[in-house]
Amino acid sequence: MLRGSQVVSVVGATGLVGSEIARLLLLRGFPLSGLILFASGKNPERTVCLAGREVPVRPFALDALRGTDLCFLAAGGEFSRRNAEAIAALGVTVIDNSSAFRMDSRVPLVVPEVNADDLSENSGLIANPNCSTIQMVLALAPLHREWRLRRVIVSTYQAVTGAGLMAAGELARQSDAILRGKAVSGKVFPHPIAFNALPHIDKFDSQGWTREEKKMRDETKKIMGDSSIEVIATAVRVPVFRGHSEAVHAEFMRDVDLDRARLVLSRSPGIELLDDPANNIYPMPIDCAGLDITLVGRLRRDPTSDRAICMWIVSDNLRKGAALNAVQIAERLV
Amino acid sequence: MLRGSQVVSVVGATGLVGSEIARLLLLRGFPLSGLILFASGKNPERTVCLAGREVPVRPFALDALRGTDLCFLAAGGEFSRRNAEAIAALGVTVIDNSSAFRMDSRVPLVVPEVNADDLSENSGLIANPNCSTIQMVLALAPLHREWRLRRVIVSTYQAVTGAGLMAAGELARQSDAILRGKAVSGKVFPHPIAFNALPHIDKFDSQGWTREEKKMRDETKKIMGDSSIEVIATAVRVPVFRGHSEAVHAEFMRDVDLDRARLVLSRSPGIELLDDPANNIYPMPIDCAGLDITLVGRLRRDPTSDRAICMWIVSDNLRKGAALNAVQIAERLV
Repeated sequence: MLRGSQVVSVVGATGLVGSEIARLLLLRGFPLSGLILFASGKNPERTVCLAGREVPVRPFALDALRGTDLCFLAAGGEFSRRNAEAIAALGVTVIDNSSAFRMDSRVPLVVPEVNADDLSENSGLIANPNCSTIQMVLALAPLHREWRLRRVIVSTYQAVTGAGLMAAGELARQSDAILRGKAVSGKVFPHPIAFNALPHIDKFDSQGWTREEKKMRDETKKIMGDSSIEVIATAVRVPVFRGHSEAVHAEFMRDVDLDRARLVLSRSPGIELLDDPANNIYPMPIDCAGLDITLVGRLRRDPTSDRAICMWIVSDNLRKGAALNAVQIAERLV
Repeated sequence: MLRGSQVVSVVGATGLVGSEIARLLLLRGFPLSGLILFASGKNPERTVCLAGREVPVRPFALDALRGTDLCFLAAGGEFSRRNAEAIAALGVTVIDNSSAFRMDSRVPLVVPEVNADDLSENSGLIANPNCSTIQMVLALAPLHREWRLRRVIVSTYQAVTGAGLMAAGELARQSDAILRGKAVSGKVFPHPIAFNALPHIDKFDSQGWTREEKKMRDETKKIMGDSSIEVIATAVRVPVFRGHSEAVHAEFMRDVDLDRARLVLSRSPGIELLDDPANNIYPMPIDCAGLDITLVGRLRRDPTSDRAICMWIVSDNLRKGAALNAVQIAERLV
């Protein structure tokens, strides 16, 4: 655990997640005695706008992290694999946003509302889970405590910002081109994303599963601390800028009481129940941008099983799905 | 059954589905001795462009249908409830695209590749199934024959054209407004659809299910002729112009052989297996527009059950999902 004010660094500070982490540290009044921003590449110094001020961004160098108490890594898996352990070896507590160390048994993988206790034993490196996993686990964990989760079948509707800043530009450019009847090109996605749906996020394995789908399965087991939970995911990119949605079918070990599920969810931290379909009220990605909470709605009893329910979970993939969860981990550490 | 060349009428011919039916009748060489187009309202006469010619569209009047052999109704449920039986009483065979009579036990509900036999006993009124149901049943029926389907959990990614021509305009206008930083308004959908996802298609019941979700359940049982099959659907509208996608988890009574499933699907009429993820090949809505076939890909074995598989089904909601299936029904009748 860390005590008092901290010297904090953010690597990847010019990216969507890194800049959001820096903003949230200021916004949430994190006890800072210094905030140092790094770009992941060796690019010339730049600045990012934080709380109305232009704050300089330095090129990353391991030596420059000496004296830092806490370091957020938001520069991708390859960068983390190369540098995270070396940074931790300097005595810096590292919160890594990438997938590089998530399944490492020595590294806690934490959604603070669910398994903050796992932070008590850490060797200076903590992993922030996958965006799609965080919001799903946040909604499932309180129900798991009541009825013990057995199996989840989930289809995702994931926003392009999950693939970074360039992906958002690609969606905007392609959408504009199609509306004007022009040809479409792209670099980030293997096919046009505008007015399309891509059942393809991250790489495929030989069995036809994507890494994203396997992350949702493996990370859920680890965060919930129950390897018997099964997650069968189909991860799909949709033309949405911000906010991941998930259609979830959850099967438990015991009969589920839907009213009790509503009550449990409405009392759970980080969740807002938004479930009044008669009045067209349900979670939507356009309503979650910039929100810290995860929205849950469309709760339904599975008509074929008393042990299963359906629901619809929406969250800001850059906030709770990435930056906010990382900052909340840091808040638990101080 | 009908014999020889037919006098055919299409009601709702200025709409997306009605005009597509008229186009397909010509394109597919349906034995026509006359084609009469009607608008559903009492609007002044208009024309639609068919095979490069402007064809007049008359205002609908029951009397004007006397002497017609076959009538396609594509003017919505309310119109069909008011008029379909009266048209059939004139001795006209009616193929109704709406949901009005689909669950009527006297009315066959037909996907020709699956249950053309049900056409043999009809009293002059035949129902065309829901778009999302048709493409799902088309892919599931051949697998059902092999291993007997038990339960389907499906999440849909449905194009706006399923809600008509005005919906497509709404998506285009809203997308343009958002790209230009302008305010968004809409009439067709209860919330903005551009860069959003709406877990809401058709009306909600008191248990929180939408009619669309219940159609997928009830129509599947009827078309497959097996009321023991369970379908648990989440129907979601996404910002796609044309082409519905579905993430399907299908559980069977017996162990499924994935290679055999591929073989069965690749030999099934109306289906193309598009499943080479290593080369970024999988079905996508932008690839299905104007295609008669339904695309199936992302076949995966459920790692938790030998009896279940996952797949991704994409089809043109205006073609096989509506107009083509209706015309194929007519082709079976002549």
